[in-house]
Amino acid sequence: MADPETAPELVIVIALYPGVTHLDFTGPHQVLVRAPNAKVLAASLDGQDIEAEGLVFARLADLAAIPRCDVLLVPGGFGATDAMLDEAFMAQIRRLGGSARYITSVCTGSLILAAAGFLTGRRAACHWAWRELLKPFGAIVSEARVERDGNILTGGGVTAGIDFAFVLLAELAGEAYARAIQLGLEYAPAPPFEGGRPETAPPEILATVQARMGPLAEKRMADAREAARRLQSA
Amino acid sequence: MADPETAPELVIVIALYPGVTHLDFTGPHQVLVRAPNAKVLAASLDGQDIEAEGLVFARLADLAAIPRCDVLLVPGGFGATDAMLDEAFMAQIRRLGGSARYITSVCTGSLILAAAGFLTGRRAACHWAWRELLKPFGAIVSEARVERDGNILTGGGVTAGIDFAFVLLAELAGEAYARAIQLGLEYAPAPPFEGGRPETAPPEILATVQARMGPLAEKRMADAREAARRLQSA
Repeated sequence: MADPETAPELVIVIALYPGVTHLDFTGPHQVLVRAPNAKVLAASLDGQDIEAEGLVFARLADLAAIPRCDVLLVPGGFGATDAMLDEAFMAQIRRLGGSARYITSVCTGSLILAAAGFLTGRRAACHWAWRELLKPFGAIVSEARVERDGNILTGGGVTAGIDFAFVLLAELAGEAYARAIQLGLEYAPAPPFEGGRPETAPPEILATVQARMGPLAEKRMADAREAARRLQSA
Repeated sequence: MADPETAPELVIVIALYPGVTHLDFTGPHQVLVRAPNAKVLAASLDGQDIEAEGLVFARLADLAAIPRCDVLLVPGGFGATDAMLDEAFMAQIRRLGGSARYITSVCTGSLILAAAGFLTGRRAACHWAWRELLKPFGAIVSEARVERDGNILTGGGVTAGIDFAFVLLAELAGEAYARAIQLGLEYAPAPPFEGGRPETAPPEILATVQARMGPLAEKRMADAREAARRLQSA
């Protein structure tokens, strides 16, 4: 089991942007902050506060001021497709990802990794409703809850971030260490009903959720195509 | 299915304090913020910022300025036993809980509900390592992941908050509505290994976690006894 006293410092950067879904990163943060000698930095452009559905995250690190990291983690959210087109943000993602031992994401954060050029020809997970948006970037869509391809580790939608984080923690600190943290966080999930995936949800529930997301689909695909065009011409 | 357009406003107050564990409330927040016409207020004494293991939650509501709520949610954390002895905080918990349709907690948040007098003779869940601290208050310890006793709904440790939130959302908005949110948040958990409960963890892992928590046990029990004494003499 890894010894927190002697483990080398492990810098984990969580890159935030407007419109992020907070559970995409608060779940992994709660797990990874307990990695041996971890320095977990939640960061944004200029260290600006990030509001996520009513919760305001303040005193963030400035992405540009972080020299390097061991793990880059990009969460998802409805703002992910706008973030893909924010050149200042994407420059930091490319720079930090280029230095990282692990390039990681949760949910639609994989679209940002793809737009940065990290997923070309690589398998990646994504929120089930938005997986198709990976294709313009030449990424290989995975339906796994946690997907691994080399040093790329990606989780599925929102709550998949917790499963993702335990996979990553086991990789960083060993399975025994990760299991101790799991017990401490009492991670023995017991959803009161089934149906958290499109394959298992009742058809009428699936139709309801698809109808809610539908109006966003056209703009998001257009944004993904534009980001893919920029990547190819870079 | 509940219609967000016509549903009456639902005020959900999440009461924060120093030393809270953030996933205890960020998990439920992400679920409950999508309840029909929900107004979810993360609040603290004087609206002070709350730092939780490196994440800083800002622009919080002032507990004392919230006239009433439909749901009071108290998360847990290593600061929970100190919070039990903070009279200004506890006065707000008693006042808001007294007006609420549902009095709820996650993890060691139930100790705070107990210290406020809401759990006397009631069944309540808690983080597995700290359940015994409910007893000085005359609460009945439950080992359930989500426990219900009348209008008291309590979740177990940390990640149990997500299961708790879906139980509560189904109660507030109907199961079909809750299942649509579940699908949207892709809540089909798949831990990479088992052992998130003391009954299922390998003995050596359980011993490791108990050894880490051991040094806190004496002070926390003393705090619980003091809070119980105050409750009885109130």
